[in-house]
Amino acid sequence: MSEIAIEDIREAHARIRERIHRTPVLTSARLDELSGGRLFFKCENFQKTGSFKARGATNAVLSLADAEAARGVATHSSGNHAAALAWAAGLRGIPAFIAMPRTVSRVKLASVERLGGRVVLCEPTHEAREAAADRIVRETGAAFIHPFDDPRVIAGQGTAALELMGDVPDLDIIVCPVGGGGLLAGTSIAAKALRPGIRLFAGEPEGAADASLSLASGVRRPVEHPSSIADGLLAFVGELAFPVIRRNVDAIATVSDDAIIAAMRQIWEIMKIAVEPSGAVAFAAIAQKKVAVAGRRVGVILSGGNVEFDALAGGR
Amino acid sequence: MSEIAIEDIREAHARIRERIHRTPVLTSARLDELSGGRLFFKCENFQKTGSFKARGATNAVLSLADAEAARGVATHSSGNHAAALAWAAGLRGIPAFIAMPRTVSRVKLASVERLGGRVVLCEPTHEAREAAADRIVRETGAAFIHPFDDPRVIAGQGTAALELMGDVPDLDIIVCPVGGGGLLAGTSIAAKALRPGIRLFAGEPEGAADASLSLASGVRRPVEHPSSIADGLLAFVGELAFPVIRRNVDAIATVSDDAIIAAMRQIWEIMKIAVEPSGAVAFAAIAQKKVAVAGRRVGVILSGGNVEFDALAGGR
Repeated sequence: MSEIAIEDIREAHARIRERIHRTPVLTSARLDELSGGRLFFKCENFQKTGSFKARGATNAVLSLADAEAARGVATHSSGNHAAALAWAAGLRGIPAFIAMPRTVSRVKLASVERLGGRVVLCEPTHEAREAAADRIVRETGAAFIHPFDDPRVIAGQGTAALELMGDVPDLDIIVCPVGGGGLLAGTSIAAKALRPGIRLFAGEPEGAADASLSLASGVRRPVEHPSSIADGLLAFVGELAFPVIRRNVDAIATVSDDAIIAAMRQIWEIMKIAVEPSGAVAFAAIAQKKVAVAGRRVGVILSGGNVEFDALAGGR
Repeated sequence: MSEIAIEDIREAHARIRERIHRTPVLTSARLDELSGGRLFFKCENFQKTGSFKARGATNAVLSLADAEAARGVATHSSGNHAAALAWAAGLRGIPAFIAMPRTVSRVKLASVERLGGRVVLCEPTHEAREAAADRIVRETGAAFIHPFDDPRVIAGQGTAALELMGDVPDLDIIVCPVGGGGLLAGTSIAAKALRPGIRLFAGEPEGAADASLSLASGVRRPVEHPSSIADGLLAFVGELAFPVIRRNVDAIATVSDDAIIAAMRQIWEIMKIAVEPSGAVAFAAIAQKKVAVAGRRVGVILSGGNVEFDALAGGR
């Protein structure tokens, strides 16, 4: 597989732009004052299906040849990629088969089914999810669309930064969350191509700090039993994303669950918008002063907004 | 006092537009599907100080002659008008004296003080608040700015509809919350002037249904002990606003607190934005099918977003 380049991200954007939202970039005088920087929030919580995942999934689905697409798409995911792939498949009128752990919340399951996804429940282990997806692919001939370790997905995720830098061309820094690394890799490719001097930082939950460990040691290193309230960021950083991140990203800051909850709360109370825990991690890194933003123009990716109303008060 | 006209609202907009946010108009395919209409949400929850009240307060403060302004402004309010007036006075560098009930929440008090408001605590009765404000005016010579029963305030509140109809000129209906009636009166003046065939509806809490009762009987009628989770809508509909509302508004629908909470939840979960209970009342009237929107293009005023994070889970 050849390297993902800015041209791939531009092509992805041309392919998906009529189907997705060009999400707004919001600012807050008060959060600028609190952080000391000038913050530009890219609001992917307002994206179709509630997260940036709609970008990569739509790019992947629309990239398929007709004969391939006709057999549908498949993935394993308990979260935003599942909803995004179901929605993107619906745009093309093809089936989406989604392997989900049987422990998934009723709300998430209902959301994927409402979007037309055909859910196959499996045991809640990574191995069982992969096996279930493999079986679906064998039986249906559906095209497997990985949540992040897929060049079409990474190129799609990079379109958020392409839009952000179109709206705010003179950013000094972008801060982005990292889980499997698809968003961070795509963002960094777009940002460095458009503005080579820009600096890239990521936020990662302390309890799932594999990307930070891997960046420090230079080789991909998983953590055992990753755990965080930011459940969208538990994945092990992907094989495709990692070399891109090594090349482009200056540092990955880890943040505690308490810091993530505090960041959600500040975004909610001051900006009046809902972000899910994973979506608040980049801002949490700034609020915790783990990324220096004083006097800088800073793009902050708010990656998603799928948090349940009842889950807020205690932070869960 | 002469009648408030569209020219007053245009002048107000020219006066305040550089100081306030032109708030976005958001749409949601899913809420359209659920309601059967095409909904355009005017997001005053993103306005300066978190509500539309910044419009009227800023118009009033900037309308003062220099000599008058120099003595400052005063009001009584426990809510959004207090924060808005403190903020607007700060723009002009003049003091804002705010009579607040001593039972006000710590968060609201801190918010007004952070904005530079000089708070005078008083007993939590309407009479005590008015007496405290009167005393401040006598002692300081400050200009009293009523929360809604003031033509400068009503004209300022009408600028939200002016912007909305600039962005979406072909609305069939606007739905707006009603408390003291300043927003509803201003909105209706702007809407009817720009599009005479438009229909105006309001949502009001069941527990504070004075405007609905008054509209039905043709005379202003208070309710005893108004009570609702929508604490911004407890005021008795104003003398200036009421005749305007009688002339322009087709109907006022009442909604229960449960319906208001359900509306907040839907807006939060689907649109990913925070609205306070009062801010969700117009949408609640639509969701409860108390305003018929099928096949119509409908402006919905989300009036404010000042809800505390911890106050959400139980709805309070």
